[in-house]
Amino acid sequence: MYLNSFEKKIFNFIKTYKIFKKCDKILIAVSGGKDSMTLLNVLYKISKINDYKLGVAHFNHKIRKESEHEEKFVEEYVNKFGLEYHYENFDIIRYSEDSKISIEQAAREKRYEFLFNIQKEFKYDKIATAHHLNDVTETLIYRLLRGTGIYGLSGLMPVNEKLTRPMLTVTLKDVEDYVTINKVEHVVDSSNFSLEYTRNKIRHKIIPEFDGIFDNYENNILTLQKILWEYRNTVEKEFKKRVKYEKNEYIYEIKGDIFDSEILRLIFMKNKNYPPNYEETKKIINMGSKKQRKIYNFLIFKNKRHLHISQLK
Amino acid sequence: MYLNSFEKKIFNFIKTYKIFKKCDKILIAVSGGKDSMTLLNVLYKISKINDYKLGVAHFNHKIRKESEHEEKFVEEYVNKFGLEYHYENFDIIRYSEDSKISIEQAAREKRYEFLFNIQKEFKYDKIATAHHLNDVTETLIYRLLRGTGIYGLSGLMPVNEKLTRPMLTVTLKDVEDYVTINKVEHVVDSSNFSLEYTRNKIRHKIIPEFDGIFDNYENNILTLQKILWEYRNTVEKEFKKRVKYEKNEYIYEIKGDIFDSEILRLIFMKNKNYPPNYEETKKIINMGSKKQRKIYNFLIFKNKRHLHISQLK
Repeated sequence: MYLNSFEKKIFNFIKTYKIFKKCDKILIAVSGGKDSMTLLNVLYKISKINDYKLGVAHFNHKIRKESEHEEKFVEEYVNKFGLEYHYENFDIIRYSEDSKISIEQAAREKRYEFLFNIQKEFKYDKIATAHHLNDVTETLIYRLLRGTGIYGLSGLMPVNEKLTRPMLTVTLKDVEDYVTINKVEHVVDSSNFSLEYTRNKIRHKIIPEFDGIFDNYENNILTLQKILWEYRNTVEKEFKKRVKYEKNEYIYEIKGDIFDSEILRLIFMKNKNYPPNYEETKKIINMGSKKQRKIYNFLIFKNKRHLHISQLK
Repeated sequence: MYLNSFEKKIFNFIKTYKIFKKCDKILIAVSGGKDSMTLLNVLYKISKINDYKLGVAHFNHKIRKESEHEEKFVEEYVNKFGLEYHYENFDIIRYSEDSKISIEQAAREKRYEFLFNIQKEFKYDKIATAHHLNDVTETLIYRLLRGTGIYGLSGLMPVNEKLTRPMLTVTLKDVEDYVTINKVEHVVDSSNFSLEYTRNKIRHKIIPEFDGIFDNYENNILTLQKILWEYRNTVEKEFKKRVKYEKNEYIYEIKGDIFDSEILRLIFMKNKNYPPNYEETKKIINMGSKKQRKIYNFLIFKNKRHLHISQLK
């Protein structure tokens, strides 16, 4: 099987970051737009080498009248390839009104819920989405401005449990060239329909200004991102090394380095809570022995150099 | 001595980051523009509390005809306060032509050379420059696009040996308000005269777009910056803990975490060389035992899990 340079880039990225194993059963999220149709085409080729079993999931947001057409397009395309096909219709506008959240948030929530349900029900090893390097840059700038620590800067990961992003190594421009050269069929991308104001401004006003400042800035950002992924792994390792979980209590020793704070924040995140902010974190790390603080329903007690963190019922 | 909230912010920043000690002799770099005249005014007030001895250094680039006027303005102002005054005239345009470097680079190089010469000759404990939070953001974006690791993201530090930046905690807007409210005398800032294309685009095209995306994004960036400063300290600590320097050789053990690469890069930087890039760094870290690589005039040899790094004569 001959792979061109674009496909090879993705192939190598999958290998380096151990995104899939041979013979994995992979569920590809396909809207029908350029990005996801490219992912489908490339993974189909690579599946001939690595014996992946592919399935496609399409989520119809029912937001615009084109939705019907898109659904048909994806289904017919998938049938030609003879892949498993899953779809769901969901009235996002109604749901967002009922639950009083933004359309963007509602769409994301329900789309991922659908993907994970299919993944479990049909025993897929991995879910693959078509995020690319421009999404990495967008997320990086978004988080910088919204506020984040180093851990949060690591943003989109190539693998996050079942969720994978094999295209993080290629730019939107690369995808567009691939679509043109290989005449990849697609519908006009509808994934941007509900882009919130902030994301929209970053994508359409700020990122275009980056072009022409430094050639190839995207690859510089990819390199930083790789380093940030390593940092995240280092934090996870230190967590395992330093933290004991006993009798519903997390216990770890303050060592005076950057991981003191990262571990504290991670304990909150692992329990699906927002971590305390920078100042609060500092206060906890630096409080005296026998002192305690309460954040949400977490009780944090210090004994000499050890923090004891428990969740109140 | 009563300090207003702006002055207090700087006062607390100086205290938290141990920027100056009581009775320090401080050389303030003053162009005569808003930023540096604000720094001069604020440090003058704080000096009454902390017994600093202040001196002012003015560097005349001789680039524009206003330079003469600026020099006079600064000298007269400083005389009113009765502070030590140092200045130098230097023909930057000629120097940049002769040495074939950009005016921007020439100006920076000669300005710092002047500051450090004065600092040594007149035994100043510290040099203070008027960089503020907007400069932090600008540097962060600049480095993101040019390419950097986490260490490099830490950008402008509050203290870097003799060089200090007591105003990193306030924004340009804060400075402008302070100047207006307190009628701080200044000349129209000439420090931008030679701003290179890249910096110019970031300052005037990209950063203004950040306003209105997230309120107070500057403070989010300051928080990230504080975390990055801690990261940098952690790297320096790990360096001291892990690296031995014996018989002109740096020796350290590869431990499989993010500091393996950071330490390698730091060894190059401490010897005033550009560090190897990401791919090269990975190759060195991962090379087999008894293998060696040469980068510039550094010889890197691996023995089991230890790297031995020496500089060839």
